[in-house]
Amino acid sequence: MTQPAFDPQAVDLAALRGRLSAKYQLYPPDVLPAWVAEMDFPLAAPIAAALHAAIDRSDTGYPSGAGVADALAAFAGRAWGWEIVPTRVLVLADVLTGVAQSLRSLTEPGDAVVLTPPVYPPFFATVEKASGRRVVDVPMTGDAQEGYALDLDGLAAAFARPDVTAFVLCSPHNPTGTVPTPTELATIAELAAEHGVAVVADEIHAPLALPGATHTPYLSVASDDVPAVSLVSASKAWNLPGLKCAQVVATAPALRRLRERVPQEVLHGAGHLGAIAAVAAYRDGGDWLRAVVAAVDVNRRLLADLLAEHIPGTGYRPPEATYLAWLDLRAVADGDDPARVMLERGRVAVSGGLPFGAGGAGHVRLNLATSSAVLVEAVTRMARGLDPR
Amino acid sequence: MTQPAFDPQAVDLAALRGRLSAKYQLYPPDVLPAWVAEMDFPLAAPIAAALHAAIDRSDTGYPSGAGVADALAAFAGRAWGWEIVPTRVLVLADVLTGVAQSLRSLTEPGDAVVLTPPVYPPFFATVEKASGRRVVDVPMTGDAQEGYALDLDGLAAAFARPDVTAFVLCSPHNPTGTVPTPTELATIAELAAEHGVAVVADEIHAPLALPGATHTPYLSVASDDVPAVSLVSASKAWNLPGLKCAQVVATAPALRRLRERVPQEVLHGAGHLGAIAAVAAYRDGGDWLRAVVAAVDVNRRLLADLLAEHIPGTGYRPPEATYLAWLDLRAVADGDDPARVMLERGRVAVSGGLPFGAGGAGHVRLNLATSSAVLVEAVTRMARGLDPR
Repeated sequence: MTQPAFDPQAVDLAALRGRLSAKYQLYPPDVLPAWVAEMDFPLAAPIAAALHAAIDRSDTGYPSGAGVADALAAFAGRAWGWEIVPTRVLVLADVLTGVAQSLRSLTEPGDAVVLTPPVYPPFFATVEKASGRRVVDVPMTGDAQEGYALDLDGLAAAFARPDVTAFVLCSPHNPTGTVPTPTELATIAELAAEHGVAVVADEIHAPLALPGATHTPYLSVASDDVPAVSLVSASKAWNLPGLKCAQVVATAPALRRLRERVPQEVLHGAGHLGAIAAVAAYRDGGDWLRAVVAAVDVNRRLLADLLAEHIPGTGYRPPEATYLAWLDLRAVADGDDPARVMLERGRVAVSGGLPFGAGGAGHVRLNLATSSAVLVEAVTRMARGLDPR
Repeated sequence: MTQPAFDPQAVDLAALRGRLSAKYQLYPPDVLPAWVAEMDFPLAAPIAAALHAAIDRSDTGYPSGAGVADALAAFAGRAWGWEIVPTRVLVLADVLTGVAQSLRSLTEPGDAVVLTPPVYPPFFATVEKASGRRVVDVPMTGDAQEGYALDLDGLAAAFARPDVTAFVLCSPHNPTGTVPTPTELATIAELAAEHGVAVVADEIHAPLALPGATHTPYLSVASDDVPAVSLVSASKAWNLPGLKCAQVVATAPALRRLRERVPQEVLHGAGHLGAIAAVAAYRDGGDWLRAVVAAVDVNRRLLADLLAEHIPGTGYRPPEATYLAWLDLRAVADGDDPARVMLERGRVAVSGGLPFGAGGAGHVRLNLATSSAVLVEAVTRMARGLDPR
């Protein structure tokens, strides 16, 4: 692979405002969007080329699914030494659908499902409203300044409850950027096996482990005899969420139940261009991904300096993975929702912490997948929102 | 709109075999694919331009949904005089998902749902396996030679059953190509209101009404006070199924129940490029659509001549809508599944009739959205499959 990478500093906000995606359409043009996990970077050249070629051959029919599982398996082997059996892979629209369908397949209505707040907000409604299960919180330990970790004692206690039948593991963890260690994951796998808890591992951010951290696929440490799934996608690391393609990698017993319970239309829910883009990403997206990781690495360190200068007292530890920064503003901002004043007075949209559940009040999540200049502008606007002059 | 149309006779099979879609990948290269409802035609120029532009601006993030409902409403007004209120529109991945979610929202587990076989095969599993409802067949009357119609007496009897709570109306009807009349639809609406039956109208083929037929939107004749939905999409008429975008248009009570019951991830299931393509299709796809309709009109008449020459005794009436021909081969072929020998010995893939349910045995469905030369080749191969020389 000798694909040219790209210049992450060449972000052109005026051009980006031409995107029709939610990130650029939800707020008026004078608001700098730094919220939802969409990158400001251009598509990887091999992906753009594959998509243009598909359109040129009018290749917009029903997906054949061909190639996604094989391309994922090859990528997982190279990236993490994780051996995926392609016949254990289901292709569907997105990771949230994978979480929902896994919970509906591996648990029963009324069961309790463990989440680790602060955590990706749609998990809560997916467990409760959409699936009719109950959420049991086992909050992350630590804080935004010192860093977070999974609460293994809390998980052990929760797993021991008879009503708890599943655990949604978010690894790497969104929004805290924590990368669980192999030892932690092995402990979880032991507890899950002991108590018959199905682990649903959202590993969508896995390719975005930053220098110093190594992602460990949960299924690489778990027994194949216990129901568990890993949910992966090229959508986050290569910025393709609108193309609708994710993969469920399942242990043998989980695959059996998924095949029994997942509705037919869900198994046809992946996009054809999403599949084509995923194959290009997994096969030929390495150089571009390395450039993204390098740019995010620069920005996570820059952010520490910017916060010290513009919003001193903010709790922040650079994420180990993801392009998301999780900031504790309780010492410097009034109220539970500093994102609101940042938007209203600072004209910058960051993700407010409240929807992330316990531990989210007074926090915000900031998107680092942009140029350093835009990051400077974002932090300047955040500061102005907190302290208008 | 002065978009150039295209030459429907310029179909290049060798180039088409480069498509990665299911139509061109499921069978070996020596098999002529004339089965699944994907067209052999090139994308409409305005759609291709919109997609290329989206890729050029790396617009692959989360869909904003913006514009789809408005574009649909404008198109429906021009095409059928159907006034859609954009706030009554939900955007999701595909029509089958719309059928599934509508049934799950408007009926209860164990309820009975009326289908009109022979009919689009995935409806059966969507009602039974995926939704836990039961199918009640009210077969179409007529036959492939004389043409089909909805069995209004049969529907009246079925709707009167206490266990029947929904009817999946396929209009225009796939595979028979029948276009229900306004009078028939008004009768159905009266029966539905009288018996409290929710109508789920799959109108995906509506823009493909052929000369001599006029599509009537079900909701344009139904009361807004009774639960009913119309499921529409640009995906069939403009050949975009892989891009994942369909729309549910709901009456007031149906919308209320959909908002209560449809899981969150389903409401995020539409593709961003699908939405962009749908807007381009509804707004600027008229000239291209007219060229498709003209080409299918030519082919549906050509097919009558070809069958008379190569497979005399085949029951066939040109469809009133859709680019699908439904053929009765019981007089000329042995067994229930003539598609099998057509594939094995003729090297042409058509859709076998059996999965379409009652009345499907001995029938096949043939795709007419191709050049006349390819249609000649398809019929020649079908004949060779039935009578190898």
